[in-house]
Amino acid sequence: MGPHPAVAAIRLAVRRVLHDILTEHSDTDAPAAAPAHRTPVSPSAPLVLVACSGGADSMALASALAFEAPRLGLRAGGVTVDHGLQSGSDTRAADVVQRLRELGLDPVMSAAVTVGRGGGPEAAARDARYAALDAAAEHHGATAVLLGHTRDDQAETVLLGLARGSGTRSLSGMAAVSGAGGRYRRPFLQLDRQTARKACMVQSLPVWDDPHNSDPAYTRSRLRHEGLPALEKCLGKGVVEALARTAQLSRDDADALDAWAGQAEAGVRDAAGLLECAKLYALPPAVRRRILRRAAIEAGAPAGSLFARHIEEVDRLITGWRGQGVINLPGKVVAQRQGGRLVIRQG
Amino acid sequence: MGPHPAVAAIRLAVRRVLHDILTEHSDTDAPAAAPAHRTPVSPSAPLVLVACSGGADSMALASALAFEAPRLGLRAGGVTVDHGLQSGSDTRAADVVQRLRELGLDPVMSAAVTVGRGGGPEAAARDARYAALDAAAEHHGATAVLLGHTRDDQAETVLLGLARGSGTRSLSGMAAVSGAGGRYRRPFLQLDRQTARKACMVQSLPVWDDPHNSDPAYTRSRLRHEGLPALEKCLGKGVVEALARTAQLSRDDADALDAWAGQAEAGVRDAAGLLECAKLYALPPAVRRRILRRAAIEAGAPAGSLFARHIEEVDRLITGWRGQGVINLPGKVVAQRQGGRLVIRQG
Repeated sequence: MGPHPAVAAIRLAVRRVLHDILTEHSDTDAPAAAPAHRTPVSPSAPLVLVACSGGADSMALASALAFEAPRLGLRAGGVTVDHGLQSGSDTRAADVVQRLRELGLDPVMSAAVTVGRGGGPEAAARDARYAALDAAAEHHGATAVLLGHTRDDQAETVLLGLARGSGTRSLSGMAAVSGAGGRYRRPFLQLDRQTARKACMVQSLPVWDDPHNSDPAYTRSRLRHEGLPALEKCLGKGVVEALARTAQLSRDDADALDAWAGQAEAGVRDAAGLLECAKLYALPPAVRRRILRRAAIEAGAPAGSLFARHIEEVDRLITGWRGQGVINLPGKVVAQRQGGRLVIRQG
Repeated sequence: MGPHPAVAAIRLAVRRVLHDILTEHSDTDAPAAAPAHRTPVSPSAPLVLVACSGGADSMALASALAFEAPRLGLRAGGVTVDHGLQSGSDTRAADVVQRLRELGLDPVMSAAVTVGRGGGPEAAARDARYAALDAAAEHHGATAVLLGHTRDDQAETVLLGLARGSGTRSLSGMAAVSGAGGRYRRPFLQLDRQTARKACMVQSLPVWDDPHNSDPAYTRSRLRHEGLPALEKCLGKGVVEALARTAQLSRDDADALDAWAGQAEAGVRDAAGLLECAKLYALPPAVRRRILRRAAIEAGAPAGSLFARHIEEVDRLITGWRGQGVINLPGKVVAQRQGGRLVIRQG
């Protein structure tokens, strides 16, 4: 008898990602995939880490990695991040380390971080977490770090992007592969949260429900417990899947348009490297605004503070020229039109 | 003392659109804009109609059109559509005709339609309504028909598109200009519903609240009264504005990518007009999938039944070729790979 369907689903998702990792590293001196699962894994085999909070999603991911990695000749390890935001978080981290060891992962480590305040509590915690995961991956020479984000997390991320109103890129959610050299992988991005939870249950894995996940002080938590259920009630149960598909389609669209803008940029600059208004005018608005955005960022405007309305105002120097003055952008960057050229620079 | 800010806002929105219409028709034999508002409008001046249900949005629009059109040397008329879906709808339509006449609009007409069943009740009512508006515009030789959709309607439309999960085009909401020859104009697309309602109130215009707008049997009504308020509670009051901005950005992105796909298509066909897989493979996924979608529609697949998952399956003939068989698409269209060519045709 095969494993429970939920366990089969999480293992399949992880196996696919491990295959990708092996294929990408097949030109290194890593050993080929081991044919039989009893073959001991070489201590020099590539290491894949799982980032685990102890919650259902990442515990399911850890269990699937522990099962699949040795069958493919890979080493599997784990890291848990202690954000230090709740009392007893160190004990919690020690518990998670213990559970990961019991799954057979090795090495396993806990990383304590100090969460700053920059960009709000959720962004600060995320920044601290990824810095710790980067450090852990580098310390152990890991080939990849698996993250337990599910399709439900992806749907929430798309809605958060929608609320920013800043277009296709902000709707593209989390990437299946991200980070330097494609370090981070999200095998569960097309798997629903319920399947991960079920897989833990049938494997008798204890899971920990982070109280932050149900704390209405957090936007994501409110979306999870109120916003998405209300949308599902209006629009039907397929909303989560539709949002996740929107993420993928938006990512592809944003990538294509960024590539177009990148290629078009050289053609709209004069010999001195200045942007020519007439040539910009001839481009589709979607491409032109991306070039303007790139130019503003290049001049020092912080990407996170540069909103669609800023770019629209700069765009009106091209499309609605009536002698406007200097336009102030974030990061003390200014944009102005001079003699048919658009000048974007530090003010 | 000038008009109430809400009245000023609706008039400004309409004035901008009338200016656009005049500019576009300035090469016809239409009279130039009249300088003073007492100048009588020529009976041969271009006619702009307002589509009016008697609700607050379209009554506000009618009042602003009645005020602005003669000042620009344009004739203003109105049409109301009797959908025949509620008892007494004919009396209601006669009331709206009367109110439009009282605003000074001329000609004013009521058009009774028969709503079919195709595509669900909302789509069927919409199809019947636009057919009647097209007929009214042609009958009176109208230059444009103004529609009262607000920013709130736009936000709802974006969420409805999001629920389809079919990408950037479906997130682009309603266009400010649409229909054959740009007949339909939506002056209130950046104006909130509350402003339109306020403008009716301060002008003592009676408005009629269509019971369909609060009937939870309609998806849009559920979104308006439950879905959007829940999202605002999670994400803040700026959600409607963010959704409306998403519509505009998505429309520009979709237009640019459609243009790219249109241009790229000729380059990926061989001498016999067949799609070459190797050349398709080299394109960005967003462009390639649009070409595949166009080819499927050209072969007879109904656009409305062709979903992202269909195109993804055809795309795997290019990106994940392992000898797959024929792929069945809606409208009895089939796609298959033969000798490095992709053949999409009636099966």
